[in-house]
Amino acid sequence: MHTNTRRFISVAAAAAIGLTLATVYAGGTSSKSTAHKPPRYLPEYTASGDLILPKNFHEWVFVGAPLTPNALNNGKANFPEFHNVYIEPVSYEIYKRTNEFPEQTIFFKELQLVLPAQYPDGSRTEPSGRGYFGGPFNGADVTVKDSKRFADTGGWGYFNFNHHEPKAETAKVQAKEDCAYCHIASAKKDDVWTQFYPLLDK
Amino acid sequence: MHTNTRRFISVAAAAAIGLTLATVYAGGTSSKSTAHKPPRYLPEYTASGDLILPKNFHEWVFVGAPLTPNALNNGKANFPEFHNVYIEPVSYEIYKRTNEFPEQTIFFKELQLVLPAQYPDGSRTEPSGRGYFGGPFNGADVTVKDSKRFADTGGWGYFNFNHHEPKAETAKVQAKEDCAYCHIASAKKDDVWTQFYPLLDK
Repeated sequence: MHTNTRRFISVAAAAAIGLTLATVYAGGTSSKSTAHKPPRYLPEYTASGDLILPKNFHEWVFVGAPLTPNALNNGKANFPEFHNVYIEPVSYEIYKRTNEFPEQTIFFKELQLVLPAQYPDGSRTEPSGRGYFGGPFNGADVTVKDSKRFADTGGWGYFNFNHHEPKAETAKVQAKEDCAYCHIASAKKDDVWTQFYPLLDK
Repeated sequence: MHTNTRRFISVAAAAAIGLTLATVYAGGTSSKSTAHKPPRYLPEYTASGDLILPKNFHEWVFVGAPLTPNALNNGKANFPEFHNVYIEPVSYEIYKRTNEFPEQTIFFKELQLVLPAQYPDGSRTEPSGRGYFGGPFNGADVTVKDSKRFADTGGWGYFNFNHHEPKAETAKVQAKEDCAYCHIASAKKDDVWTQFYPLLDK
């Protein structure tokens, strides 16, 4: 065979292999198990170890919205008022498969005030009925699972990014007596309130 | 040039072009604007025109959880009780850019009962305070924007997938007097209750 012909065979074969690999790669991103999934979002810390406010949490998986109205808590709920809770989506995928929250799981609890009350219990009437309707956002709390970094607080770190707007850009980890003790005492599974989140309660 | 050589040049060139196209395609899915986004989920209908229960709504963008407790609505709220509302994510991306809900936008409202009451207003006390805490899921309502298909009901179709579990697999469109009239009369923007959803209220 002519030398040039051999070279072109090699080129063609290499390109074809490359094409095949590229096709497999592209196909891989649209396969059922990994279809178009974003990469896992992991906690980010400042040089001094404070947690940086997680990004894009509004696009995470919502798990529940417990509501503790100020009006039912002597005018000053500890968490005013809706607690809109999200889990980082790839951590959720892992949880569905393993039934355990993986290391680096992040929960984001965005607080949201209710619209102004018409009744002493804080409720109001809208066309859908009497109840509570979300108003302005009101800060956030975040928890991160890291058994080593947060060994002193049960394997989860607890962060308060303000209970008002704007949310803080970074937050220091909270002492055990501020948050962890209550999760450890009363949350149903691995210090998470799965008793309020049917999506996670299994 | 030898005929076989020419043929191999053609094969190599075709493969190389294919490789380039495949690479561009794969690269396109990781570019910033479309990073790992799933395709848009569009409404699916049966042959007779009923809406099929949308898939994967728990991974859509949560916009708010109005709460109308049964206990505050003569024991029987029209929508019992949390209304966990989601928008299809790609429609949301378009909305953020255009400030209009595009045709085929889907809203999914999953209903969720509260955990058993300890007080006449339906509330109970948990470690985070007195209020309302999500229990079992309780059916769903869905709305779809389609100006032509749903011209009779203001450009949106309204569907009830049961107000109990399990959710129906399909649902017929509701008459104007059952749902649309109220959205048309009182919802803030394009028949959507954006007054309760800060993420959409702009």
